[in-house]
Amino acid sequence: MEHYPILERINSPADLRALPAGQLDALCGEIRSFLIHHVSRTGGHLASNLGTVELTLALHRVFDSPADSIVWDVGHQSYTHKIITGRRDRFDTLRQENGLSGFPKPSESPHDAFAVGHSSTSISVAYGISQANHLKNNPHHAIAVIGDGAFTGGMAYEALNNAGRSRNNLIIVLNHNDMSISRNVGAFARYLSTIRAQPAYLRFKGRVEKVLDHTPLVGGRIKEALLSSKSVLKYLLYHSTFFEELGFAFFGPVDGHNIEELELVFQRARELGRPAFVYVETVKGKGYEFAEKKPQAFHGVSRFDVETGNPDISVEDSYSMIFGRKLTELAAKDRSICAITAAMKMGTGLSLFASQFCSRFFDVGIAEQHAVTFAAGLASRGMLPVFAVYSTFLQRAYDQVLHDAALSGRHLVLAIDRAGLVGDDGETHQGIYDVGFLTTIPGMTIYAPSTAAELEALLEKAVYRTRGVAAIRYPRGGDPGLFVSPAPDADTIRLPGSPTLLAVSYGRIFQELSLAASRLETPPELLKLNRIWPLSEELLESLCHCPSILFFEEAVASGSISEHLLAALVRRGWRGRYQAVTLPDAFIPQGSANGLLERYHLRADAMEQRLREEMT
Amino acid sequence: MEHYPILERINSPADLRALPAGQLDALCGEIRSFLIHHVSRTGGHLASNLGTVELTLALHRVFDSPADSIVWDVGHQSYTHKIITGRRDRFDTLRQENGLSGFPKPSESPHDAFAVGHSSTSISVAYGISQANHLKNNPHHAIAVIGDGAFTGGMAYEALNNAGRSRNNLIIVLNHNDMSISRNVGAFARYLSTIRAQPAYLRFKGRVEKVLDHTPLVGGRIKEALLSSKSVLKYLLYHSTFFEELGFAFFGPVDGHNIEELELVFQRARELGRPAFVYVETVKGKGYEFAEKKPQAFHGVSRFDVETGNPDISVEDSYSMIFGRKLTELAAKDRSICAITAAMKMGTGLSLFASQFCSRFFDVGIAEQHAVTFAAGLASRGMLPVFAVYSTFLQRAYDQVLHDAALSGRHLVLAIDRAGLVGDDGETHQGIYDVGFLTTIPGMTIYAPSTAAELEALLEKAVYRTRGVAAIRYPRGGDPGLFVSPAPDADTIRLPGSPTLLAVSYGRIFQELSLAASRLETPPELLKLNRIWPLSEELLESLCHCPSILFFEEAVASGSISEHLLAALVRRGWRGRYQAVTLPDAFIPQGSANGLLERYHLRADAMEQRLREEMT
Repeated sequence: MEHYPILERINSPADLRALPAGQLDALCGEIRSFLIHHVSRTGGHLASNLGTVELTLALHRVFDSPADSIVWDVGHQSYTHKIITGRRDRFDTLRQENGLSGFPKPSESPHDAFAVGHSSTSISVAYGISQANHLKNNPHHAIAVIGDGAFTGGMAYEALNNAGRSRNNLIIVLNHNDMSISRNVGAFARYLSTIRAQPAYLRFKGRVEKVLDHTPLVGGRIKEALLSSKSVLKYLLYHSTFFEELGFAFFGPVDGHNIEELELVFQRARELGRPAFVYVETVKGKGYEFAEKKPQAFHGVSRFDVETGNPDISVEDSYSMIFGRKLTELAAKDRSICAITAAMKMGTGLSLFASQFCSRFFDVGIAEQHAVTFAAGLASRGMLPVFAVYSTFLQRAYDQVLHDAALSGRHLVLAIDRAGLVGDDGETHQGIYDVGFLTTIPGMTIYAPSTAAELEALLEKAVYRTRGVAAIRYPRGGDPGLFVSPAPDADTIRLPGSPTLLAVSYGRIFQELSLAASRLETPPELLKLNRIWPLSEELLESLCHCPSILFFEEAVASGSISEHLLAALVRRGWRGRYQAVTLPDAFIPQGSANGLLERYHLRADAMEQRLREEMT
Repeated sequence: MEHYPILERINSPADLRALPAGQLDALCGEIRSFLIHHVSRTGGHLASNLGTVELTLALHRVFDSPADSIVWDVGHQSYTHKIITGRRDRFDTLRQENGLSGFPKPSESPHDAFAVGHSSTSISVAYGISQANHLKNNPHHAIAVIGDGAFTGGMAYEALNNAGRSRNNLIIVLNHNDMSISRNVGAFARYLSTIRAQPAYLRFKGRVEKVLDHTPLVGGRIKEALLSSKSVLKYLLYHSTFFEELGFAFFGPVDGHNIEELELVFQRARELGRPAFVYVETVKGKGYEFAEKKPQAFHGVSRFDVETGNPDISVEDSYSMIFGRKLTELAAKDRSICAITAAMKMGTGLSLFASQFCSRFFDVGIAEQHAVTFAAGLASRGMLPVFAVYSTFLQRAYDQVLHDAALSGRHLVLAIDRAGLVGDDGETHQGIYDVGFLTTIPGMTIYAPSTAAELEALLEKAVYRTRGVAAIRYPRGGDPGLFVSPAPDADTIRLPGSPTLLAVSYGRIFQELSLAASRLETPPELLKLNRIWPLSEELLESLCHCPSILFFEEAVASGSISEHLLAALVRRGWRGRYQAVTLPDAFIPQGSANGLLERYHLRADAMEQRLREEMT
């Protein structure tokens, strides 16, 4: 049993504020031990949370949550925040069914100012909260805590472009942990910091640069590094008073692991009476050797061994890996294939592709909108772009898929990972809407493999034998693959059985249906959709003879394939019996994927029972 | 009959290149006359096209379209481009059924590099094209022409953040026509231009500022104006070598009405072999007095009188105006009501609100994503935000409605203007997908008024008597309002008739249905949905007794209310006859709204015929 003598006395931000400053460093150590111990058992986001321990404590010591609203961008860095706002005792339930969410959730605690899970929203939210406070003469603050990764999302700029105009009590904290920034640029940033701390703040960069020209030894290298910086964000940070001219008071860079310094800066920002921008430098994975060395590997983790840092399950046989291997294989033979990811190279299985074909691999940052339209541009000039993206994040690019890809009839492939129930990440990440929103878009084709062989065959079909926008959707992780498909690239597979009932499904749960049917003495006829959209005339024609259809589907009911199929059959005058078992039209909270499938009657036992009822 | 002696000899970019430079000014004059003459008769975008005459000619004289790809952002400024690429003779068909599109359309001409209609996509597209060219060793250029308004959309930043990294033949032309920029800042920009034109380009702004400090009379005012600039874009432009450090060679500011200067700069940019950014200053409405004075009023216009500049129809009774008046009335009594627009204050009818309640009015720029999440932030602290947005542009914020508004259960109102077929703007602007994509989002409520009285009553209901995200959708323009609703805020209205058939509809086409039914000797029972989503248990229960249902709906079939209704009834064991007349799952080209409704059998005559068939 682990013991945390100081942490165990912290049950609210008030306890934290009452703590003598001398005990804060020890508390940080305890929190890091606590995080490593727990996340190694539950899985979750580790590196980002280890990097924000001091930042979180400083925020809660200076501000008065929940009267002051702390909005965590994405939210996967909010574990320390959860631990010190009364949720320490429940931390072993993290990301479990009915347990703590891995993201901020107002229903869980009033200290969680806003529900979040997707990136780049925090400035918009905090600006909205601060504006409401302003209109109601409420003097409290709204604080957005946003990482540099989230700044690659366009929404952050849209919000900045607006928020600075206000006179609100709004503070934007940039948590900068970009490992790629060189020491030199970091040195320049620290140098800038000393300038900015002066009372007679030097407004013009000209003088900064003049000083650099006269700085012996490092000056030239700093300038060189400065000039080679390549991202919008780096430019904004290291060049001049950008944020000030947008209306923000600028503070920083601040050492994100120095609580005293952080508190001082936050206190000053709080007193201003107008928007402030605080730039904080942190180290991702801080305090855990393996995570500091490989922060990407410890971004979102499954359970792992604390001593070695090794994960205790293999992800080699996940759908993502199979997809990545197959696409790399195709790209070796076809120089027109390009792979695109929005900051999810590892998660989508594209590491191999990236290392072998770097000129045709594009990581665009957390910028799904740009990713799709960029792909459409590539496609318009004869390339074969494949955008690998989680189902939940593709939601960001609905308009681009419709307006820039489908409307032009461009041929590109959306490889939709984490389709269906994703489990631990909960309601913000469920991939259960893509079938609904994609089928509203004219000309889409959607495939849904449920085995490795099908994923490979259908990917090839999506790339080479499909027009317009082709999507191929597959679940998170891996499956044992009970059903070995006899024709992995067929659009539909029909398995004989009693003609009194046709049971239909697609994707991973077809495996469950197959198992359920195999337990019956007289199994029903089965239909597996590999291409779930559009429904072919031929298929519809053949179904018009079925007296009774039962459809199992892992998607929300509204806009589901089962709804479209019913409408299409009725349009043809079909008058049989039709039943559909789908997910409800609801936000579905966290839990294991299998547990959730069971809850919604989409596993073999429930299916077997339902089949028996229908067959009698 | 108008006569254009030079223009009539220009049938391709080659003709334009062969024209002596001395005749270009006269040609520009002819093109402006041509534009004013034609747009006054067809309607369309005028001010932006008058501003880009010289820019377009210079681009086509320097670059070799279609081998070089010119991508117009949004695309409503491409009229001159269309006129000189062989479409002059068809220009009187602009925005008419089977006529020229008001936007670039590759199927219309190979010179239209990409189909477009929504904002802020051009850099992503042009970067994609240039990357494809690069990978194929094709030396041609991709050129994005983007206005400063489009730069308020986050996608533009996502793309910039990526495109500058490349070594592609990519040119971004910023067409800057912001009328709000003062003469001072403009003067500074011109001053900067002279510096940048020097062979020994002065890299550091420090020196610029030093020069300013020594510029007599205007130096101080220029610096002051510089420091008061408030938008991200103005900052990027007037401060330093931002674009250069992102990887672009920077040229400008260039006088956008001086063809010679434009050609020189484009020639230099073309020779570079790496991405270039060209900043061009233009005057919106250039050359037509009324449009120069009121560029906003001449942005997108209906037909107007050339002599007076007055439109020949009144928009006073449009749904937009009725919405704006009612919301202003509610806001006078309730200080929590806020109105938000994404750069469409006039189009959405919010001018009155803005003038009366400026502290609660927010124009966020072309930033629909931010708009929704900002609204959710406001709502989370007790405000009542109403975001007025065109249906087609709400597509940009699908994820934000789902993830930031609905998932949190925030109460806010989406006032969805231009819902349904929009007519002249064509396939990029049809508002026929929102029903499909919004109904995939759990917890949505959607209202669809079809008269002024209903719009007012249902808006009030959406604001005060609905939980979660409430949408109210209404068409473009106005309608005569045949059907005077007896209970404008009821969720459903059922009108008695023969029980053999129940005819269902909502929105403006219910007026058509009502008229059609009135012509029958024995009209069917009618059901009008005012609240189209969700379908109440009570309603579903009452429909289970109908032997036959016929649904008319102005939306694409997939994801339509008629699909959801069928599924819900079948789920309850209903086995009646069900027919739905909807729009096809397709992109629907331009034409008058009534003409299109007729084509898809959604006007009274076709409905009457269908009702008669079903009743016999």
